[in-house]
Amino acid sequence: MPARGSARAGFIGLGVMGRPMARHLLEAGFAVTVHSRSRGPVEELVAAGATDGGSPGGVGAASDVVILMLPDPPDVHAVIFDEGLAAALAPGSVIVDMSTGDPMLAREWAATLAERGIDLLDAPVSGGDVGARERTLSIMVGGRAEALERARPLLDAMGRRVVHVGDSGAGMITKACNQLVVASTIQAVGEALVLAAAAGVSPARVREALLGGFAASRVLEVHGRRMLDANYVPGGRVALHRKDARIISRLARKLGVVTPAFDIVADALESLADEGGGDLDHSALVTLIEAESGVLVADRAQAQEE
Amino acid sequence: MPARGSARAGFIGLGVMGRPMARHLLEAGFAVTVHSRSRGPVEELVAAGATDGGSPGGVGAASDVVILMLPDPPDVHAVIFDEGLAAALAPGSVIVDMSTGDPMLAREWAATLAERGIDLLDAPVSGGDVGARERTLSIMVGGRAEALERARPLLDAMGRRVVHVGDSGAGMITKACNQLVVASTIQAVGEALVLAAAAGVSPARVREALLGGFAASRVLEVHGRRMLDANYVPGGRVALHRKDARIISRLARKLGVVTPAFDIVADALESLADEGGGDLDHSALVTLIEAESGVLVADRAQAQEE
Repeated sequence: MPARGSARAGFIGLGVMGRPMARHLLEAGFAVTVHSRSRGPVEELVAAGATDGGSPGGVGAASDVVILMLPDPPDVHAVIFDEGLAAALAPGSVIVDMSTGDPMLAREWAATLAERGIDLLDAPVSGGDVGARERTLSIMVGGRAEALERARPLLDAMGRRVVHVGDSGAGMITKACNQLVVASTIQAVGEALVLAAAAGVSPARVREALLGGFAASRVLEVHGRRMLDANYVPGGRVALHRKDARIISRLARKLGVVTPAFDIVADALESLADEGGGDLDHSALVTLIEAESGVLVADRAQAQEE
Repeated sequence: MPARGSARAGFIGLGVMGRPMARHLLEAGFAVTVHSRSRGPVEELVAAGATDGGSPGGVGAASDVVILMLPDPPDVHAVIFDEGLAAALAPGSVIVDMSTGDPMLAREWAATLAERGIDLLDAPVSGGDVGARERTLSIMVGGRAEALERARPLLDAMGRRVVHVGDSGAGMITKACNQLVVASTIQAVGEALVLAAAAGVSPARVREALLGGFAASRVLEVHGRRMLDANYVPGGRVALHRKDARIISRLARKLGVVTPAFDIVADALESLADEGGGDLDHSALVTLIEAESGVLVADRAQAQEE
C-alpha cells in the first residue's frame, strides 16, 4: 500500500499504547520511522515494515509529523528538547504529543517550538489500551487548525473520533476533564454497588438495571463489570490516574475552580496508591469503599448468582 | 384491540409520569380503571378508553393488577391502607408501586399485604417523563417472581427494560443506587465543564470529545447539554432528588456503608433546594459550582461557538 499524502510519519514511544497505534499507521500505508527506549518493540515494528530511526533526532530527520506516546511530561520534554527531535525537524513540521500531560507545559513548549516554525499539538486520548488496539480511541486536540489538518490523516488512522477542542493546551485540559469525570464516575458506581451488596441486592442485577436508565455510562459497563469480578488487572492504572488527578487539582486551584466531589476521589486515589495499589486498575477505588463498609461486591455478586 | 391475558389493570396517580404510562396500557389493549386526585387527567384517560374507578377502592374492586405512580411514600400508604385499595382487592391481586420510595417501608408494607394474599411489587423507574412518554423506562422490580409474572405484560407495555432485582425492597434499593449514580455523575460533569470554561476551552467541544471515551454517559449527553444551554426546566426536579438523597443517606447509614463522594453531592442538593432551586432540573447542581468558581458554562459555550 502506498503512503497516503506526503506526510512521512515518525513515532516515538512504543509502549502498551504506542505499539498498536504505530501498527495502525503502517496498516494505513504510512511510511513510519520509529524509536523507543526498549529494543524489543522497535524490532517488532521494523519487522512489520517500519524504519528504525535510532534516536529521537533520527526520527526527526526522517519525518514531517512525529507522534509521541510517552509516559510522563519529563520524558516528552527530554525527547523534544534534549534528545534532538526539535533540532532535527524542518520548519513546517508537526509534533503530536498524545501522552497525558500538564496543559501549562503544553502551552509553554508550543510557544518555544513555534519560534522554530514547528507546531506542537497536544492530543491526548481516551479509550485505553483496548481503544489503541481496536482503533476506537477518542483524540482531543489542542493547537493550530492548520497543523491539525497536516496530522489528521495519521490521527484518523489511530482513533475513531478526533475533536479539535481549541488552542495549545486545550487537548490536555479536555483530557483533565475526562479524567475527572472518569474517576468520579468510578467512585459513584463503586459506592452504589457496595450499597446494593450491603442491602442484600445482587450488584450484578443492579448494574444491569442501571444500564437501562440515566445512570448508564461506559464506566458502569466496563469498570462496574470489573468490580463484580474483583478484576483489577489494568486497564487504567491507579498510579497514572493519581498523576492526572494532581494535574487536575493544580489546574483547578490555579483557575479558582471548586471541584468538591472530585477532591474526595483524588484523595482516595492518593490513599490507594500509597497503600500499594498503584499498579491496580482504577476501578479498584471500590476496594476502599468495601473496606470501610465491611462488604465485598464480588462476594455478593457470586453468592446471589449461584 | 382486546385485552391481553386475563389481567384487569388499575392505575392510580395520573401525574406527569402516570398519564403517559396509563395511555400505553390502553394502547396495548388492556382494560384500565383509573383514579387520580385531579379530575382533568381522569377525564382525559376516560376519553381515551379508560374507566373512572372513582376512588382507590373503586379501582381495587375492578382490577387484578394495580399500578401506583404517586409522589411520595405517605401517598402510597394512604392509597393502599386508608383509601380502600387493599380492602377492595381480592386475594391473588398484585399492587405495583412504581413511585420511588424507602426500601424499608416497601418491605414492611409487602409483609402486611401478604397476610391478605396480596402481593406488593416495588418497581420504581428510571428515564423520567421522556422515558414515560416514549416507553423507554427502565423498571427495577423487587418482590415475588410469581407476582412479577402476573404484572409483567403491563410493565412491558410501559417500559423498555424490566429487571427483577430481588425480593421486596430490592427495586427501591436499586433505584436508590440509580439516584446515587445519577446525582454524582451530574456533579462530575458539572465540575468538568466549569473547569473547561474557566480554562478557556469550549465546554461544548469538551462534552463532544468526552462522549467518545470512558467519560461517556447518559448524564454527559442529556444533563451536560442542559448545562451548556443553562436550561434547568425539569426533567428531574432538585426537590425530588433531594428526597431520594435522604433515602440513600439513611439507607447507607443503617447499613454502615460509606458514600464519601455522594455525601458532598447530597449536601449540594440540600443547599440548592434551600436556596429556592427545588423546582429546577437536577442538572442545576452545576450552578453551585459556577457560583463558587466565578464562571458560567453557558456563557463560555456561547462565546466560543460564535
